[in-house]
Amino acid sequence: MNLRKDADYIMKAAIEACLPDEAVRSALQTRDFKRGRIFMVSVGKAAWQMAKAAADILADKLTSGVVVTKYDHVKGEIPQTTCFEAGHPVPDENSFQGTQAALDLVKDLKAEDTVLFLLSGGGSALFEKPLIPKEELADITKQLLACGADIVEMNTLRKRLSAVKGGRFALACEPARVCSIVLSDILGDPLDMIASGPAYPDSSTCEDALGIVRKYDLKLSERATELLKQETPKELYNVETQITGSVSGLCRAAAEAAKELGYRPVILTDQLSCEAREAGAFLGAIGKTYAVSTESVAFIAGGETVVHLTGTGKGGRNQELALAAAQLIAGLPGTAVFSVGSDGTDGPTDAAGGYSDGETKEKLLEKNIRIYDVLQDNDAYHALQITDGLIMTGATGTNVNDVAVLLIKR
Amino acid sequence: MNLRKDADYIMKAAIEACLPDEAVRSALQTRDFKRGRIFMVSVGKAAWQMAKAAADILADKLTSGVVVTKYDHVKGEIPQTTCFEAGHPVPDENSFQGTQAALDLVKDLKAEDTVLFLLSGGGSALFEKPLIPKEELADITKQLLACGADIVEMNTLRKRLSAVKGGRFALACEPARVCSIVLSDILGDPLDMIASGPAYPDSSTCEDALGIVRKYDLKLSERATELLKQETPKELYNVETQITGSVSGLCRAAAEAAKELGYRPVILTDQLSCEAREAGAFLGAIGKTYAVSTESVAFIAGGETVVHLTGTGKGGRNQELALAAAQLIAGLPGTAVFSVGSDGTDGPTDAAGGYSDGETKEKLLEKNIRIYDVLQDNDAYHALQITDGLIMTGATGTNVNDVAVLLIKR
Repeated sequence: MNLRKDADYIMKAAIEACLPDEAVRSALQTRDFKRGRIFMVSVGKAAWQMAKAAADILADKLTSGVVVTKYDHVKGEIPQTTCFEAGHPVPDENSFQGTQAALDLVKDLKAEDTVLFLLSGGGSALFEKPLIPKEELADITKQLLACGADIVEMNTLRKRLSAVKGGRFALACEPARVCSIVLSDILGDPLDMIASGPAYPDSSTCEDALGIVRKYDLKLSERATELLKQETPKELYNVETQITGSVSGLCRAAAEAAKELGYRPVILTDQLSCEAREAGAFLGAIGKTYAVSTESVAFIAGGETVVHLTGTGKGGRNQELALAAAQLIAGLPGTAVFSVGSDGTDGPTDAAGGYSDGETKEKLLEKNIRIYDVLQDNDAYHALQITDGLIMTGATGTNVNDVAVLLIKR
Repeated sequence: MNLRKDADYIMKAAIEACLPDEAVRSALQTRDFKRGRIFMVSVGKAAWQMAKAAADILADKLTSGVVVTKYDHVKGEIPQTTCFEAGHPVPDENSFQGTQAALDLVKDLKAEDTVLFLLSGGGSALFEKPLIPKEELADITKQLLACGADIVEMNTLRKRLSAVKGGRFALACEPARVCSIVLSDILGDPLDMIASGPAYPDSSTCEDALGIVRKYDLKLSERATELLKQETPKELYNVETQITGSVSGLCRAAAEAAKELGYRPVILTDQLSCEAREAGAFLGAIGKTYAVSTESVAFIAGGETVVHLTGTGKGGRNQELALAAAQLIAGLPGTAVFSVGSDGTDGPTDAAGGYSDGETKEKLLEKNIRIYDVLQDNDAYHALQITDGLIMTGATGTNVNDVAVLLIKR
C-alpha cells in the first residue's frame, strides 16, 4: 500500500507522455521543406527540447536558429542555433536580447523561406520586446500576478504592450511563411493566447484589455494606456499552426498509468481553473465520501489553478492544492492527493508540486503546525517539506499545465 | 431538451425523499414507550414537521410538548404542544423563551419518564439559553458569520456559552431517559455538532474553542472568555440517539431521480465544504470537459459550501455556486448547474438556490452585467432573477444541507 510510489509512477508516466521531442518529430514529418531556407525560432519553457528535436531532423536543411528559454533549461549546443536563457515569469534583459535576435533572424526573408516557429508555455515572459520601459512592464506583470489575474487576462494586456505578441511576430516574418508547432499550456488550447500568440491572429480586443485594467485597478502610465487602445492583427495569411501536446493528453496519460496500477480512472476535467486550495478541498471532499469505496479509484483533474497571495511564505499552486486536501482526507487510510506542474516547477520553488495523504495533517500537528495557518501564509512548501510531501522532478522539458489526482487505494 | 425542467424534477425528488415525517414515523416504531410519561421537545428548522409526525403516532401517550422552529415554519396546532417561532441564524428573545419552556418541561422528571428529543438543523440558533448577555451572543454569532467560520467552529464556541448545548440539555433531563431522533444537517453526521448537540457528549475541547477565537481574532468579553474555558460533558448515560436523514440521502435521491430522466449519475461527494463560487467553478470545469460527452451525465455534489463576504449584495451560497459555474459553461449546449438548500432557503433571501446554463452568461452580458462583478458584490440573487435562474421552493420542512448538480444532457 505505497501510495506515494503510485503517485510518483502516475505523474512520471503522465509527464513522459507529453515530452515535446516525439511531438515535434511527428509534426515535422508531414511538412514539406523543399523550397527556400529554413529559420528556426523556438521559445518557451520547452524551447530547447523542441529545437533540439527539430534540428536533429532538419540537419543541414536548417539555416539558422534562435532559442529563448528559462534559466537552466538549455541542455547543450544545437547546430546553427543560438540559445538564450532568460527570466520567467518576469521578463529580463536576456528575454529582450533573445527576442531581438529572433527579430533580426527573420528580417529581410523571402517568400520561399520558412520560419519554423516552435512555441511552448512561458513564452509570454521569455519572448518579449516591450513597447514601454521594461521597468514598467515588470511592474505591470507583478501587479497582475499579485492580484490573481489568470493567464488569459495577463496575455490580453501584454500583447498590446509588445512588438512580438498578438500576431506581431508573424507580421515581422512576412513575406516568409511561418510554420508554427505548439505545445499548449492554456486550457482549451486558444492559439492566440499560448505565449500570447506571436504568430496567431488576436481575438482579444482593446475593450477587453481596458476592462482588465478596471477590474484589478491596475496602475499604468499614459503611454501604456495609449498602447492598450491600439488593435492587434485579426488576420494572418502566412501562418500554418499545429498543436502537438496539451493538458488533455497529460490527463489521459495519468488515467492510463493509474489503470495499469489497478485504479479505476475518472477524468473529472482538463480545464480546472479555480482557486488552488479550493480545488484541493473539493478533491478532499470526494476523498471523504469515497472512504467507504471498496474499489481503487483515481479521480483526475487537469488544468491550472490560481493562488491569491495572503501571506509571504514559499509555495506554489500545486503544493497549496495538495496541502488543502490534507485537511479533508486526514485520518483516511489509502487516500492521497497529489498535484504536479508538468514543467517540473511550481511557483517560485524548486519543487514541481505536492503530495499529501491521510497522515499528513497528523504529522504537521505533531510539530504544532496547523494547515489553515500555513495556507494563510502561502507557505505550503515548508509544511510539505516536513511531511516528505514535496515532489521534485527538475525541469521536465515539457509544459502542458498541471494534473491533480485523488487516489483511493483498496 | 428542457434542462430547467430536469433540474426542478431532480431537486424536488431529492428533497421529498428527505422529508422528516416518514423518518420520524419509522424511528418511533422501534421504540418502547410503555413506561412513564412522554415529553416531547422538538427544535430546528424541521421541528414542526417532526413534532407533528411524532404527535400523530403517540396520540394520547404524549403528555406535553414544546416546539422551537424558525419564523413561518409552524403550520398548525399540535395537541398538548406549545409552538415557538424564533430567530435564525441569529437567536432572538423568542429563542430564549422557547428554550426556557423546554427546560421547564423537563424539570423534575422521574427515571421512568421519557423525553422525546427531535433535532434538526438550525437548532444552534433556535435552541438557546445563553450564559452571556444576548447582545454579546448575537455579536459573536455575527462576527463568526462574517469571517466565514464553518458551522463546526461556530458550534464549538456556542456550546460553552450556553446552558443547553454540548450535552447540557440532556443533563437537565436527568433522571429521565432521552430518546433523541436526529435529522442531520452537518456533513459526516457528527452528533455532538448537530444543533450543537444538546443531548450528546461534546467531543470539542476548551482548547479548540480558544483556537477559533485566535484564528478569527474574535472580540469577546472577559465573561465569555472565562466560559470558553469551562468543559462540557464528555459522557451521558441517559441518552439514546438515532439519525434518520442526512445529505447522503439527499445525494442518493438526486442520483435516483437523474437516472430516471436518463442521466448516468455520478455522486462526487456528500461532504463538500469549500468556497461556494470555487465549487461552482470546479463543477463548471467538469462541464467544459464533458462538452464532448455523447451520453447524458449528472455529477452530484452534496454538502454545504461557505461564502466569504466581499460585497453588500443579496444572495446565498447555492446562488453563488450556480452563478460562478455559469462563467465556465457559457456557450455550452445541454449543460446546466443548479444548487439548492434542502430547507428551501439560501442565505438571507426568499430563494432556495440557483440555476444556470450555457445561456446564462450571454443573457447577463446583454444587460451589461459581468458575472465577476456580481460575485464580488455577493449579488447573485439579482443576476439570477434576470436570467430566471432563481429556485423558489418555500420552506420544505426538511434540512439536510445542500445538493449541487451538473447536468450534461444529450
